Amino acid sequence: MNGHLLVLNAGSSSLKFGLFTAGPEPMALATGLVERIGGAAELHLKQAGGAVIADGPLGPRGASHQGALEAALEPLLKAHPGTAIRAVGHRIVHGGRNYAEPVELTDQALSYLQELVPFAPLHQPHNLAGVAAAQAAFPQARQIGCFDTAFHRHHPFVNDTFALPRRFYEKGVRRYGFHGLSYDYIAGHLKQMAPLLYQGRVVVAHLGNGASMCGLLSGRSVASTMGFSALDGLPMGTRSGQVDPGVLLYLMEQEQMTPAQISELLYLESGLKGMSGIGSDMRALLGSDNPHAAEAIEYFCFRARRELGGLAAALEGLDALVFTGGIGENAAEIRARICRGMQWLGIELDERANAASAPVISGELSRVRVLVVPTNEELVIARAAARLSR
Amino acid sequence: MNGHLLVLNAGSSSLKFGLFTAGPEPMALATGLVERIGGAAELHLKQAGGAVIADGPLGPRGASHQGALEAALEPLLKAHPGTAIRAVGHRIVHGGRNYAEPVELTDQALSYLQELVPFAPLHQPHNLAGVAAAQAAFPQARQIGCFDTAFHRHHPFVNDTFALPRRFYEKGVRRYGFHGLSYDYIAGHLKQMAPLLYQGRVVVAHLGNGASMCGLLSGRSVASTMGFSALDGLPMGTRSGQVDPGVLLYLMEQEQMTPAQISELLYLESGLKGMSGIGSDMRALLGSDNPHAAEAIEYFCFRARRELGGLAAALEGLDALVFTGGIGENAAEIRARICRGMQWLGIELDERANAASAPVISGELSRVRVLVVPTNEELVIARAAARLSR
Repeated sequence: MNGHLLVLNAGSSSLKFGLFTAGPEPMALATGLVERIGGAAELHLKQAGGAVIADGPLGPRGASHQGALEAALEPLLKAHPGTAIRAVGHRIVHGGRNYAEPVELTDQALSYLQELVPFAPLHQPHNLAGVAAAQAAFPQARQIGCFDTAFHRHHPFVNDTFALPRRFYEKGVRRYGFHGLSYDYIAGHLKQMAPLLYQGRVVVAHLGNGASMCGLLSGRSVASTMGFSALDGLPMGTRSGQVDPGVLLYLMEQEQMTPAQISELLYLESGLKGMSGIGSDMRALLGSDNPHAAEAIEYFCFRARRELGGLAAALEGLDALVFTGGIGENAAEIRARICRGMQWLGIELDERANAASAPVISGELSRVRVLVVPTNEELVIARAAARLSR
Repeated sequence: MNGHLLVLNAGSSSLKFGLFTAGPEPMALATGLVERIGGAAELHLKQAGGAVIADGPLGPRGASHQGALEAALEPLLKAHPGTAIRAVGHRIVHGGRNYAEPVELTDQALSYLQELVPFAPLHQPHNLAGVAAAQAAFPQARQIGCFDTAFHRHHPFVNDTFALPRRFYEKGVRRYGFHGLSYDYIAGHLKQMAPLLYQGRVVVAHLGNGASMCGLLSGRSVASTMGFSALDGLPMGTRSGQVDPGVLLYLMEQEQMTPAQISELLYLESGLKGMSGIGSDMRALLGSDNPHAAEAIEYFCFRARRELGGLAAALEGLDALVFTGGIGENAAEIRARICRGMQWLGIELDERANAASAPVISGELSRVRVLVVPTNEELVIARAAARLSR
């Protein structure tokens, strides 16, 4: 069956999208981004080869997700005449307890996803706004939901629960884990490229503006550093990562902060940005001589080492460590500093391979293989959309 | 210089105390406990050898810490005529940023400790009530404060901070760590009994009704599983241990819980008690055939393994693991389950030595030495009181 696929990733004020062929192994034709929806919205649209299709302000239609999508589709479809969108694949942060796989977004499915808004109030509503925009733009197309939580749904109970009274687990207070589309891609890549490692104990470090790590046994997620929300675990660009629950009690009781203020603090003002006082961009911090920037980097790398040790315990050892995500794929210095001091676990980097961001960056004598694999969440979504719209 | 020492550990509704000789190495003469202060208070008092001095209801004087202390002292001093209390050593949960050692509780020191109440609102006021009671009972004695945080005050920055904006670190939102008196005792014991291990990389698991783990390098704490409060890290009898900060936001925003309700949930209704639905006592859970009890135990042991891996990363490897605290010293089954699956780290238990709670429970071929050491926080306090009242 022929036709095309659209992949959508709708954030609070952004819309990322990709146009793919709909064959059994989809191929990207074009990718785009609308940023600052609701403000001075801009569209950046290019061919898969890199040639720019459109680049500039979007005008009044950038006031809503739906307007932005319509406005972005015009130059996209003009550059790709004959496009017939068979299915739209959506990145959706939360699939709750029920979805361990991508699903077609029927009314019933959408109503379930709506119920999950309290679990991800900052992300889920925007993801669902993207679905509504796509339904309006392509009423004939199948809408497919792909969930950041789905890949983790088979965690053993010890990695799914908190030590709270049982009723909280029953109502969904669980360790969902996120970045599942990225981990899914990496697992598929390993299965193809390194089938023996794929069968083993693997930690994947997805280090981007959001960051988490996932422990894989035979390609299945058994543990993640993220839990109930996208806050836990590693420090991130603007998110705190692991914080003592007593800190939140202190902020509420002693600093009189409201839940909304604490949420803004932990999601938007913490992490690398909060520690450095400079910003959330790792490249800028690496280039800075500000001592607080150096401390933020040191903390980031240290927490990654500590979580790596914890995940090795969950996996009962380690055979491979995979770096991915914007930082993981590109920042050789960060990879080196995470791996430094991990000789006890059998990790030895090849400095030159690491500097070149080579696919294998561990040394000949390293017991643990260390890899760099560019992730491709859009491809995972496109594959699901192709499969479920067949 | 001669005389005696009183050691006091005042909780919200309890008062533990010990009478010691005041020589260079203090010796316990008698120990006691008043429980249910403010309610149906009871006194349990016995000689160090075990003979019972007093055991029964305390009457109306059990309404306050001061009355309880006075009422407990009568049979104690009658059984030990000629007692001259030279100093009272107090267990105080929080010494803040300033105190990395025990100190004499001058007015200035007490006023600083009062300022720390917001950091430990559930514990610090009761500890200070104990100081006031002791000042009233022994106006001539020196009052010495020993802090659960002090032993951790030299943590490197990465183990002292959270990834929050700098101003929170400056105002004291730090990873203090607790159970420092116990770790101090264990470090001193290792220095004497196993000087080579003492110089190495050691994790101490203090597993009692409260539970934490501490990473030691050359006898100094470099990392702990507890942070800002006594909530973080391992699950405990009634405390949650590690919880995603997003869970607290959810409880506030979606469940409309107040800070006081969340505090009660996380401190008093969670952990082994919350998970099992049965209670907080590990012995009872081990003896139960309730599947939720089994899950609570499994979670407890799993989180200990995961934190052990994380601390090994902080120490860049592991030479010894020490179990202490009520569970750590006595529950062979829990020690076995924590160590099972840690072969990757070089841990191999000797099952028979473990079943006997022998001082060394690792096997001949275990690369990591595993020890059981009964802790003695009271002795650490008595030593400090003797030293500072000289």
